[in-house]
Amino acid sequence: MGACQSFRSLCDGPKNTNVRLSLPAVCFVWQTAMIILFGIFIRYNEEADTHWIEVRKEHNISSDIENDFYFRYPSFQDVHVMIFVGFGFLMTFLKRYSFGAVGFNFLIAAFGLQWALLMQGWFHSLDYADGKIKIGVENLINADFCVAGCLIAYGAVLGKVSPVQLLVLTLFGITLFAVEEYIILNLIHARDAGGSMVIHTFGAYYGLSISWMLYRPNLHQSSRLQGSVYHSDVFAMIGTLFLWMFWPSFNSAIADHGDGQHRAAINTYLALASTVLTTVAMSSLFQKHGKLDMVHIQNSTLAGGVAVGTAAEFMLMPYGSLIVGFCCGVVSTFGYIYLTPFMEKHLKIQDTCGIHNLHAMPGVIGGIVGAITAAAATESVYGKEGLANTFDFEGAYEHMLPSTQGGHQAAGLCVALCFGIGGGILVGIILRLPIWGDPADDNCFDDETYWEVPEDEESIPPVPQYNNHMRNKNVAESHFTMEQN
Amino acid sequence: MGACQSFRSLCDGPKNTNVRLSLPAVCFVWQTAMIILFGIFIRYNEEADTHWIEVRKEHNISSDIENDFYFRYPSFQDVHVMIFVGFGFLMTFLKRYSFGAVGFNFLIAAFGLQWALLMQGWFHSLDYADGKIKIGVENLINADFCVAGCLIAYGAVLGKVSPVQLLVLTLFGITLFAVEEYIILNLIHARDAGGSMVIHTFGAYYGLSISWMLYRPNLHQSSRLQGSVYHSDVFAMIGTLFLWMFWPSFNSAIADHGDGQHRAAINTYLALASTVLTTVAMSSLFQKHGKLDMVHIQNSTLAGGVAVGTAAEFMLMPYGSLIVGFCCGVVSTFGYIYLTPFMEKHLKIQDTCGIHNLHAMPGVIGGIVGAITAAAATESVYGKEGLANTFDFEGAYEHMLPSTQGGHQAAGLCVALCFGIGGGILVGIILRLPIWGDPADDNCFDDETYWEVPEDEESIPPVPQYNNHMRNKNVAESHFTMEQN
Amino acid sequence: MGACQSFRSLCDGPKNTNVRLSLPAVCFVWQTAMIILFGIFIRYNEEADTHWIEVRKEHNISSDIENDFYFRYPSFQDVHVMIFVGFGFLMTFLKRYSFGAVGFNFLIAAFGLQWALLMQGWFHSLDYADGKIKIGVENLINADFCVAGCLIAYGAVLGKVSPVQLLVLTLFGITLFAVEEYIILNLIHARDAGGSMVIHTFGAYYGLSISWMLYRPNLHQSSRLQGSVYHSDVFAMIGTLFLWMFWPSFNSAIADHGDGQHRAAINTYLALASTVLTTVAMSSLFQKHGKLDMVHIQNSTLAGGVAVGTAAEFMLMPYGSLIVGFCCGVVSTFGYIYLTPFMEKHLKIQDTCGIHNLHAMPGVIGGIVGAITAAAATESVYGKEGLANTFDFEGAYEHMLPSTQGGHQAAGLCVALCFGIGGGILVGIILRLPIWGDPADDNCFDDETYWEVPEDEESIPPVPQYNNHMRNKNVAESHFTMEQN
Repeated sequence: MGACQSFRSLCDGPKNTNVRLSLPAVCFVWQTAMIILFGIFIRYNEEADTHWIEVRKEHNISSDIENDFYFRYPSFQDVHVMIFVGFGFLMTFLKRYSFGAVGFNFLIAAFGLQWALLMQGWFHSLDYADGKIKIGVENLINADFCVAGCLIAYGAVLGKVSPVQLLVLTLFGITLFAVEEYIILNLIHARDAGGSMVIHTFGAYYGLSISWMLYRPNLHQSSRLQGSVYHSDVFAMIGTLFLWMFWPSFNSAIADHGDGQHRAAINTYLALASTVLTTVAMSSLFQKHGKLDMVHIQNSTLAGGVAVGTAAEFMLMPYGSLIVGFCCGVVSTFGYIYLTPFMEKHLKIQDTCGIHNLHAMPGVIGGIVGAITAAAATESVYGKEGLANTFDFEGAYEHMLPSTQGGHQAAGLCVALCFGIGGGILVGIILRLPIWGDPADDNCFDDETYWEVPEDEESIPPVPQYNNHMRNKNVAESHFTMEQN
Repeated sequence: MGACQSFRSLCDGPKNTNVRLSLPAVCFVWQTAMIILFGIFIRYNEEADTHWIEVRKEHNISSDIENDFYFRYPSFQDVHVMIFVGFGFLMTFLKRYSFGAVGFNFLIAAFGLQWALLMQGWFHSLDYADGKIKIGVENLINADFCVAGCLIAYGAVLGKVSPVQLLVLTLFGITLFAVEEYIILNLIHARDAGGSMVIHTFGAYYGLSISWMLYRPNLHQSSRLQGSVYHSDVFAMIGTLFLWMFWPSFNSAIADHGDGQHRAAINTYLALASTVLTTVAMSSLFQKHGKLDMVHIQNSTLAGGVAVGTAAEFMLMPYGSLIVGFCCGVVSTFGYIYLTPFMEKHLKIQDTCGIHNLHAMPGVIGGIVGAITAAAATESVYGKEGLANTFDFEGAYEHMLPSTQGGHQAAGLCVALCFGIGGGILVGIILRLPIWGDPADDNCFDDETYWEVPEDEESIPPVPQYNNHMRNKNVAESHFTMEQN
Repeated sequence: MGACQSFRSLCDGPKNTNVRLSLPAVCFVWQTAMIILFGIFIRYNEEADTHWIEVRKEHNISSDIENDFYFRYPSFQDVHVMIFVGFGFLMTFLKRYSFGAVGFNFLIAAFGLQWALLMQGWFHSLDYADGKIKIGVENLINADFCVAGCLIAYGAVLGKVSPVQLLVLTLFGITLFAVEEYIILNLIHARDAGGSMVIHTFGAYYGLSISWMLYRPNLHQSSRLQGSVYHSDVFAMIGTLFLWMFWPSFNSAIADHGDGQHRAAINTYLALASTVLTTVAMSSLFQKHGKLDMVHIQNSTLAGGVAVGTAAEFMLMPYGSLIVGFCCGVVSTFGYIYLTPFMEKHLKIQDTCGIHNLHAMPGVIGGIVGAITAAAATESVYGKEGLANTFDFEGAYEHMLPSTQGGHQAAGLCVALCFGIGGGILVGIILRLPIWGDPADDNCFDDETYWEVPEDEESIPPVPQYNNHMRNKNVAESHFTMEQN
């Protein structure tokens, strides 16, 4: 840590937040690279190719409705809304960082999903016959999932980094994600349809580690902007609700056709409902006068969805989902009240959106719930074929036992944690280089740094009324300042 | 009414709005009860269970796409958006009650849907073989529908009740709903796919009766907060539009597979389009200078969707839908202009959101339209099989005539009215008990009562500019007050 | 142009913006006409009619899931969201025209879609057996598409016209659209699933021509309202994101079942992702200090979706989509920076939302990309059957060559341009008549003109705090002015 400290002081020169060269350069170079790599590697899969009509005949598929598009496209669109509106608006709660929240979320998601299609494609959709990656709607969903990991990480550093840093964070994040996901799902053979481990645990610890590396001891200098205003809290509720409503689609989007998707949706629906009640209860219980805190309602109500991610496609049972949701509402709200301030003060982890409470802890809980549920699976509950289907006990895993599967699930959780923490520390070191245009401590949480911000609301339409109030004293002056705006 | 008056004066002591004990207690106890009851009663149905693969073989189902999930899940998600974003944001129009509108809507919906799964399950999805309720996606939709009734009722009392009162209102509301729905659909054999009677008529009269029981003669004390501001009206339009757009999914969500869902969507789409035009016409015609009123645009444009709820799955014909929409736009806007003030003044019914105009009258119209359309059905229009399918003339009802069905529809409407008014009065009496933490008359419509509200927008980001305007006079003072905030 | 000038001066009398008679009259008369015409002409098609059960047996359709409803309804709902929330909120960026943006968008969409069902129905869905138009979910999508053309045109004249003018613009716009679409798709046999030519090129030039005819030399008189405020930019991002997210559904909604819809969605997803990066790059590169401009992020990020509209269902290839998106982000942002001011100053075209950059140029690019992609199609890439399917080489066109198809595509683009410009000039002349209640130059962009606008936010809830700041000097006065509000 001594070396780290001195490295830190090296990096803390005066700040230049002008990204006029670096941001366009990264965007243009990267997009050009994407075009070239897509040209070399990416093609449509057989369900999206004009040869589909021949495939149908060959495989004796009676109707176009059997195309995977119709199984997954509605869920894909819901996930898409979660990524862009859900994550984007959830972060608009800060009084003067809504442009950055929605805009940079938009940028890094659009940037990341292209790289995700390539990285995940190489691992999962490579056609060895011609060396091409064949994509379809499931790849689009997975790319959105992959991006979600990075957007979670963005939540920890919201308002404290430059857009160029975010692109670097995303580039490495996607890469790490694809490797980690391949290890967990393919090598370890863990199941994780809703990504409690792969997406949430990884993404959250990745972001927290980066935030720890980028610790700003003087962040209190922008404390005037570290909070919400009335309308920004309402905007944030748009994000909360779209995340909450569409989470059943998130957890069921890539689950097995038929009962798998059906069950995952039901479990998530129930877990989320349960979380809302315990979040409200905790928020009221720990607040002076029993008043509710918008921070909890905006965030902790979602924890149940995170925590049933792994087990949603298992026979978790409706009451099991309610129990998971119950616990997560309590744990997550508790985290916002006690852990976030503790971590900032004692662990030097500044977590703007509280992703530790919304993604990290519930993600770990989700991994554990998944391991236990898998280990407890029996043929009497699942049916012989159902068990094999649900846990994909096929090929080399034909004779695998549920208890062993439980162990593999736990191993998967550990891998997600290691990749998150390890990767975050490495990327955090890179992001400390003084070349990325990050803001000074007193410019954090302020859209002025990277955006053309319009004149303030106060100064324009109410002008006549404003002048009214001071009709007798300040008219001349205020008119004068008006014209200068 | 004399007894009622004196009961009222008994209840009107000084108000304590601290819900720090009652709200968490209700949430925790209730959620625990739900877990226990779900553990005892609720299981997945055969389409969401891992045994689905065996069911498929048994019933010779050729593809997973036949799972009800794929017929109904997209509509379910649309309905889900209507419940949480639609109803929630529609009520954000008040200048300082957006947290309460969106937040309490969120709370009671999440609370209610669990109880609805149980209540409706006992009536409709109980598997007598093992005494378990078997749930699937259709149950989730019905739970959302059931909750909608209570959210409509919330519209009448918006801003005047405590969250604990809302939970009580919801608990009884769901219970009454499930009984009423069972009587109307199963005992009376009325059809009501979009719930004009079951949801809207019941919910609206339930809410209006409660509001009547909770009449506040001195509500004018918070009149400064009874209105919108510019931005809150725009937020409310988010609610309006999501309700308007997804209403075709609402009315078709549980209609028959195939032509039933298809027709219900078309009819609702057309009725809503027609309502927009007559609402705009009425709003402009009755306003000084022909200016449009946001209250009408936000609410009355939806009345057509309510009113085709029952008949949407019948052969109402496209022009029939337009006619229903036409009338509802006129009636609903007229209600906002004349009836709401009349009811407040002369009937002592304070209806914050005007649910009488948006749900009660259009709901009754919808019930009547349904009865007429059913009574007028003929084999020449529907086809022999089509008639039996549409009205479910099977089993004991095999030889039922359309004209008789029309009578049953009308009987259903009466049941909905009775349950709404009767139930509302009873629950209203309970809610008058002085133990629920409801606000005083001058604290109504104010988020401060139950929420931690952030500092005002004015006082923070514009500070530098604000000081600018008074650079010469007030700098020292305003800096001083700033620091005290 | 001399005649045009003098006609202009004729029309520029004093303005009366009272629409209390004209607006209700148009709405009531039109809606009544719609009911009559729907009564005469419009019926359900066989998939939405109760006779569907017989159709199934006759055509040996094994399941209700084969009903077109299940192929297209999820896409329809996404398109519906784009029309009402997407277009509506995208235009809320102006500081005091959010009611007009969302509200008039709502009005003209609901008005237009009814007329579109009739106009398009006569051309495409007329059943010659009984002279009725038979509608189903695909007709609803096409009606929404048709309306989109007029909403694009609204973007050019936003804030400068009365609602009555908008209804006239829509009435003629829908009519022209239906004719133009019939010529392009049926007579010329061009393909245009996502409507680059039919919707965007036509709509944009229609709107620009109208704006040119309605040129206001003194528009600078309302320059105080021609801009955004912080929150209005966030509202506009709601529109941007819903348009961006659901554009894959827009371009795939009426594409061929199976691979056609699948491929169209993938191509659009990729093109849009690419556009975001180049838009951000251009915005930063051309702005002082490299700051991003919300105008570009809100609009230019969507240009890629417009430009793959025609070719989305072809084998454009994933890298092809990225290239199209890349170019459009550059061209569109460049347009906002240089072309829009140029056009206003030198061509007298005042384009409030910059539709020239978002729809006109990308639309033309899309038409050209479609022509090239079609001309370059080969059997080796598409497969023999795939080629015939994709370009609909059936019946009279059985032996058509891709190169010829390319020529037809180009011809289609020219027709769209001619109809847009020609139709716009004609309708513009009509809209100059001094009878429509359009606002004076200094009343543009102001909701006060046609809406009851609530009191300003400033003057109500913050009152106590506001007084605080001036406690020592202005208390008496400001209280006094408060009470006068």
